[in-house]
Amino acid sequence: MAEDKKPEVAFLGPKASYTHQATLDTFPENSYTHRPEITIEDVFSSVQSGTAYRGVVPFENSTNGSVVFTLDLFADMSNKYPDILVCGESYIPVSHCLLARHPSPSKNASVIDSPLSSGAATPTSRDPTPAKPLTAPLGDISGIKKLYSHPQAWGQCKAFLNTYLKGVERHDVSSTSRAAELVSLDASGESAAISSGIAARVFGLGVLARGIEERGDNCTRFFVLRKKGEEASGEVEAEKTQTQDPNPSYKTLISFTVDHSNPGALANSLAVFARHGLNLTSINTRPSGVENWNYIFFVEVSGSSTAGIEDGRGGNGGAVDLALRDLKEVCRGCRWLGSWENRLQR
Amino acid sequence: MAEDKKPEVAFLGPKASYTHQATLDTFPENSYTHRPEITIEDVFSSVQSGTAYRGVVPFENSTNGSVVFTLDLFADMSNKYPDILVCGESYIPVSHCLLARHPSPSKNASVIDSPLSSGAATPTSRDPTPAKPLTAPLGDISGIKKLYSHPQAWGQCKAFLNTYLKGVERHDVSSTSRAAELVSLDASGESAAISSGIAARVFGLGVLARGIEERGDNCTRFFVLRKKGEEASGEVEAEKTQTQDPNPSYKTLISFTVDHSNPGALANSLAVFARHGLNLTSINTRPSGVENWNYIFFVEVSGSSTAGIEDGRGGNGGAVDLALRDLKEVCRGCRWLGSWENRLQR
Repeated sequence: MAEDKKPEVAFLGPKASYTHQATLDTFPENSYTHRPEITIEDVFSSVQSGTAYRGVVPFENSTNGSVVFTLDLFADMSNKYPDILVCGESYIPVSHCLLARHPSPSKNASVIDSPLSSGAATPTSRDPTPAKPLTAPLGDISGIKKLYSHPQAWGQCKAFLNTYLKGVERHDVSSTSRAAELVSLDASGESAAISSGIAARVFGLGVLARGIEERGDNCTRFFVLRKKGEEASGEVEAEKTQTQDPNPSYKTLISFTVDHSNPGALANSLAVFARHGLNLTSINTRPSGVENWNYIFFVEVSGSSTAGIEDGRGGNGGAVDLALRDLKEVCRGCRWLGSWENRLQR
Repeated sequence: MAEDKKPEVAFLGPKASYTHQATLDTFPENSYTHRPEITIEDVFSSVQSGTAYRGVVPFENSTNGSVVFTLDLFADMSNKYPDILVCGESYIPVSHCLLARHPSPSKNASVIDSPLSSGAATPTSRDPTPAKPLTAPLGDISGIKKLYSHPQAWGQCKAFLNTYLKGVERHDVSSTSRAAELVSLDASGESAAISSGIAARVFGLGVLARGIEERGDNCTRFFVLRKKGEEASGEVEAEKTQTQDPNPSYKTLISFTVDHSNPGALANSLAVFARHGLNLTSINTRPSGVENWNYIFFVEVSGSSTAGIEDGRGGNGGAVDLALRDLKEVCRGCRWLGSWENRLQR
């Protein structure tokens, strides 16, 4: 492949977002061009239309759960993305910082003893045992009147926010990087962003607190998307959707709908996977979009469809293929959404 | 019960919210005092502490899916709400309006012919068949620079927003009523809220568009909460968590966790319900909060635990009780979260 025509990888931007980190993790800069997109749907569109070789989107956070926008795009009610498949995953540790334009990190040791930095949440009659944040502010944060972040971040930093910034006005923006950018533009200095340490450097902001997330092992999982028929190019050696593990394990994503009037329809569908020895690693539901209180189910199972692995390193492809065949017998409709190498460190 | 000491019902406020409507639907004003709370967690606290007789919280929207805040409170990782049970439900049609302080609803019939009000979304190369909104603005909305609403509302009005207000800055606030209030306070007139027709009256706002939600049958389901041991008082005749249906059907909410290393653990757990003839009416998952990529499952099944129905109108209580006994054998841990009369119109 010519050096001047690198394959393009679309990702949920802007630059310096966690999705950008996941993209760099999988597609080294010397072999790929990275193209930030504004929405998750834009990434799906770029891959479906073939204007991007691959796409990278967030799928779930370990603390805050699934990214419903991504699930709804996989549900694909309008049949706009019939050829989208997952072909890889990436786990990125997510550590949030509180960033502001005019930080006043006190060098005074007395701050350590102030109630604000004790790390203890204030008990009230309503909440006698509030969750304790793992970290405390590095200085005075009483001047903060507005908070900006991505909606997912609030749920990942609940204890810190409830303890140190309770009642402060929250503004949702499209990404944690965008939050940092907006704060950098607010001359009043009364805004703060929940964003990454990288964004602090990119936008020249001060760090008022580090690691403010709920759990030390907070992590987001990203999916690499490809278009059906667009197989991994042997020439692009550097693509890291597969490890060099001689005994890799695989995962497969499948969506299905069931006849809701049939008791046990869901259990019967899930039993198919157990019958073929395939462990369910996750399950999600979203409104079906067709009829109220009907749902589309997403399951992730161990193993790979033979259609999913082009290099012949089978996995237990046969079992997934057989399960898909049997699933069609008991569900209303189902779709294979891709198979990829498991990159979760066990 | 003395007239001057009505039972208190806590609900997710503020007044004029959809949860308030659900509360009025179940607890008539002449028999109950209605107390707005600031957060869903405040409602759980009031019921758990006994300071409220009942609580009302949103559970899921037909278009936008589950309310994860409510699910996480039912998951109750910190064991703060051990006695909370669901004892009723209420379905409230949700119709959103676009509200602004200085509406300029054109009386000019030509607006009907303008591209903006054609009801057609603009096709682009990215999105050649965009979803069409069901309604068009009643006048010029080009002056709107900021939108306020509850996060759930964006997902319920996607087609309208993508067609008529694409790219306009969005601010998440705690409720659609609060959105209307904020817009009423913004003297610039550049703000608009996605909120209810009731909120327009309460805050004196003009209606720029009606029924902007994705689907005509958009509906939110609310749960009525009680404290274990606090049974329905026979004296409070007016509580409408039960109908006068001589053959009522019931639903039960159960949470459970499984051993994720055991293939088929989830399927085995769900098979228990099928074995006892209990239809699964919904399933939800949330991160377990204990270990990354482990989940807590919430299932709703037809039928009632005998513990759930105090007035002796059984349902198929025996089957739910037997299923709970069998579930304990195959899952890691499980909890009965209440049984109530099904109020979905079939």
